[in-house]
Amino acid sequence: MYDAARELDRNDPLALFRDRFEPLEPGLIYLDGNSLGRMPRRAAEDVILAAKQGWGQRLIRGWNDGWIDMPTRLGQKFAGIIGCEPDEVVVCDSTSTNLFKLASAALRDLAPRRRIVSDASNFPSDLYILQGLGEVVLSDDLATDDETALVSFSHVAFKSGAIRSFESVTAVAGDAFVLADISHSVGVVSMDIHQVPLAVGCCYKHLNGGPGAPAFLYVRKDVQDRLHNPLQGWIGREDPFSFHIDYQPKQGIERWQVSTPSVLSMVAMEAGLDLVLEAGIGAIRRKSIQLTEYFIALVDAYLPEFVLASPREPEHRGSHVLLRHPEAWRITRALIEQANVIPDFRAPDGVRFGFAPLYNSFEDVAEAVRRLQNIMETKAYEAFAAERPTVT
Amino acid sequence: MYDAARELDRNDPLALFRDRFEPLEPGLIYLDGNSLGRMPRRAAEDVILAAKQGWGQRLIRGWNDGWIDMPTRLGQKFAGIIGCEPDEVVVCDSTSTNLFKLASAALRDLAPRRRIVSDASNFPSDLYILQGLGEVVLSDDLATDDETALVSFSHVAFKSGAIRSFESVTAVAGDAFVLADISHSVGVVSMDIHQVPLAVGCCYKHLNGGPGAPAFLYVRKDVQDRLHNPLQGWIGREDPFSFHIDYQPKQGIERWQVSTPSVLSMVAMEAGLDLVLEAGIGAIRRKSIQLTEYFIALVDAYLPEFVLASPREPEHRGSHVLLRHPEAWRITRALIEQANVIPDFRAPDGVRFGFAPLYNSFEDVAEAVRRLQNIMETKAYEAFAAERPTVT
Repeated sequence: MYDAARELDRNDPLALFRDRFEPLEPGLIYLDGNSLGRMPRRAAEDVILAAKQGWGQRLIRGWNDGWIDMPTRLGQKFAGIIGCEPDEVVVCDSTSTNLFKLASAALRDLAPRRRIVSDASNFPSDLYILQGLGEVVLSDDLATDDETALVSFSHVAFKSGAIRSFESVTAVAGDAFVLADISHSVGVVSMDIHQVPLAVGCCYKHLNGGPGAPAFLYVRKDVQDRLHNPLQGWIGREDPFSFHIDYQPKQGIERWQVSTPSVLSMVAMEAGLDLVLEAGIGAIRRKSIQLTEYFIALVDAYLPEFVLASPREPEHRGSHVLLRHPEAWRITRALIEQANVIPDFRAPDGVRFGFAPLYNSFEDVAEAVRRLQNIMETKAYEAFAAERPTVT
Repeated sequence: MYDAARELDRNDPLALFRDRFEPLEPGLIYLDGNSLGRMPRRAAEDVILAAKQGWGQRLIRGWNDGWIDMPTRLGQKFAGIIGCEPDEVVVCDSTSTNLFKLASAALRDLAPRRRIVSDASNFPSDLYILQGLGEVVLSDDLATDDETALVSFSHVAFKSGAIRSFESVTAVAGDAFVLADISHSVGVVSMDIHQVPLAVGCCYKHLNGGPGAPAFLYVRKDVQDRLHNPLQGWIGREDPFSFHIDYQPKQGIERWQVSTPSVLSMVAMEAGLDLVLEAGIGAIRRKSIQLTEYFIALVDAYLPEFVLASPREPEHRGSHVLLRHPEAWRITRALIEQANVIPDFRAPDGVRFGFAPLYNSFEDVAEAVRRLQNIMETKAYEAFAAERPTVT
C-alpha cells in the first residue's frame, strides 16, 4: 500500500507545508491534530521575540506597538478561513467563555424564552455551559418550539466527525438564534459562516494555535447591535483608558472583548492562521477528504475488526474518523506507547484518528494502518491495562 | 541625593534580584511595574522550552506531563504570597472574568438580594462587570443594607495607591459577601487574605507574569461548597474526560476553572511567582515602603509643583504614588519620550509612579526625580502635544 500512498504524496499540492512545522521525533505519526495541532516553526520564533523584545524590552510600550489590537487584527484573518467579513470575528477568552457570552446574550434578547435546543453529540463542555444558562432540551433533529431562544450545535461532531450543515439547522430553527461551535471544522472544512448568525470556536486544533490558545467568537453584522456581552469588561468598553465609571459598549464586534489580551498566547497563534490562509481552505478541504477517504479504504481492506463510526460520504464528514472496537482503550495505548502512532481514545469504545492536511502525508496514513494491523494481528494491546485513569 | 540613594542600595537585601530580570536598554528607568511588571529571565527560557519541547514535540502528551494541573499547581504558590491555604486559589481566565464568576455566585447565593456596594475608586473594569450583574451602589464608606449581597473593592486603589484594609470592609459589610480585588497589592503588600472570603487579582503587575497573563481567584475554604461557578465549563467539571452530558462541579477550588488552560501564558508566569516566594513578601513590603517613602521625601524637597495624591502614611499606601499636576499628560510624555523614565498617566491630571522592590533601586528613584526636576525647570513638556489620544 505504500506505493499508492507515495503516489498520492507526490501529487499533493500541500506536501511542502509539512516542513513549516517543528519536526517530530523520528518515526512518530501524529494523528491528533484535531485535539492539539502541531507547532508551526514560526510560532516559536514569534513567541521568543514577543517575550525577549516585547515584554522584556518594550514593556508597557508594547500595548502601543500593536498588542492592544491583536484580538481584532487576528479576527480579521478569519474572513479568509470561514467566509465572514473582517469585522465579524474577535479573538479572546476561551471557547466556553465565548459560548457563555453569546448564549447569554441570545437568551436575554429573546426573554422570557429560556429554552435551548441542542443534541447529545454536541461537545459536552458546550452542554455544561448551556445548562448553566437556561433549560437545555436535547433533540437529535434540533426541533424548536416557540419557547426556544437558541439552537446550539457542533458543526463537526467531536466524536463521530459528522458534519451537521448550517442549512439543516437554520431550516428547523424558526426565529431562535442559531449558534454553531466550529471548533472541529475551522481551518479544515470550507464553510459559509454567514448562514448562521453566531459561532464560536477554538484555535488549537486545525488552526495550530498552541495548547489552550485563545478562542474566537463570530457575530454576523446584522445582529451585532442587538446583542450585548454579559461580561462587561473594560476592553469591550468604548474608550477603555478614559476610566469612566459607567460601562458603555464598543460598537460592532469589539464589544465582545472582556479584558487585557493574553499577549504571548495570541502571538503564538498567528503563524497557524497564516499557514491556513497561505494554503487556502479549499485546498485544505480537498486534501482532508482525500486523507479520510484513503484511511477508510485501508480500514475496509485491512482492519475488518473495527466498525466505522463516522459518515462514509465525504461531504458529511470532517477531518477525523472514529473507529469502534470493544478493546479501543487498550488498542489506543498500544498505538501510542508501542507503535508510536498518536490518535486518541473517546469513551466508551472509540479510537479517533485526526488528519491534518497541512502536515499529515498519505504515507502517514498507510503506515499508521500498517502498525495498527500489526497490533491487531499480534494482539499486542493485551499487554496494556484495561482500566482507564480518570484523565487520559 | 545620589549618595543617600547608593547607601540605601548597598543596604538593600533584595538588590541582587534585579539581575534576575531581562536587562533593559541602558538609561531606561522603568516605574510602571504596577501596570506591567518586567520579565524574569527564566520566564523566557521556560516559554521557549514549553514551545519547542512541549507543544512542538510532546504535543497532546503535554497534558499528561503537567499542563492540566498548572491552574492548581500555580494556585498553590499563592499560599506564600497572600496567606491562603494551598487549595484556596486557582489560576485561570482574566481578572474580569473571575470577578464575574465570583460576584455572580455570591448574588445567586444571597438571592433575591441584588445590590452590590462598591466605591468610585475601585478599578473601573470591576465596576463595569458588576453593573452587568446587579444594582451597583457607589458608597465611599462601603455601607451596606439588608438588600446588599456583595461588597466589592480594590485592596490598593489603582490611581491613588491607597490601601483599604480588609478589616475596615468586613466591619461594615454585615452578612454580605466581601470580594477584594488585590490586583495592585498582590506580590508587593503583605496581607492576611483569610480576613475576606473572596478575592480576584491579576498576575502581570507585581507578580511579573507577562502581558495579559492569566489571573487568579481565591475562595476561602468555608464558602467553597456554597458557591457555584456560573461558567460551567468542562475543566471545572468532575472527571472532564468522561464526556458525560450533565454538568457536575468539581469539589473545592477546582470548580472555578472553565476551560483548557492557556499553557504558554501560564508557563510564562511561574518564574515571577517563584521570585516573589524566594524574596519573601515581608522583605518585599519593607523595601516597597522604603522606596515610596524615599520618593515622597524627594518630591517634597525637589518637586514642589506637584500635589501628592497618595496617602502619606506608609501603612495606608501600596507600592505606587500618584502626583497631580495640571500638565500631567505632557509631563508624562516628556518623561517617557525625552527623559527615558516610564511612569504612566492617569486621567485627568495624574502621573503615577510604580516602585517594584524586586528590580527598582533607590538610585532609580533619585535619578527619576532628577530627570523630572529637569523637565519642570526647563518646561521641556511644553514641546509635547496637549491632546491625548484615546488609547495611551
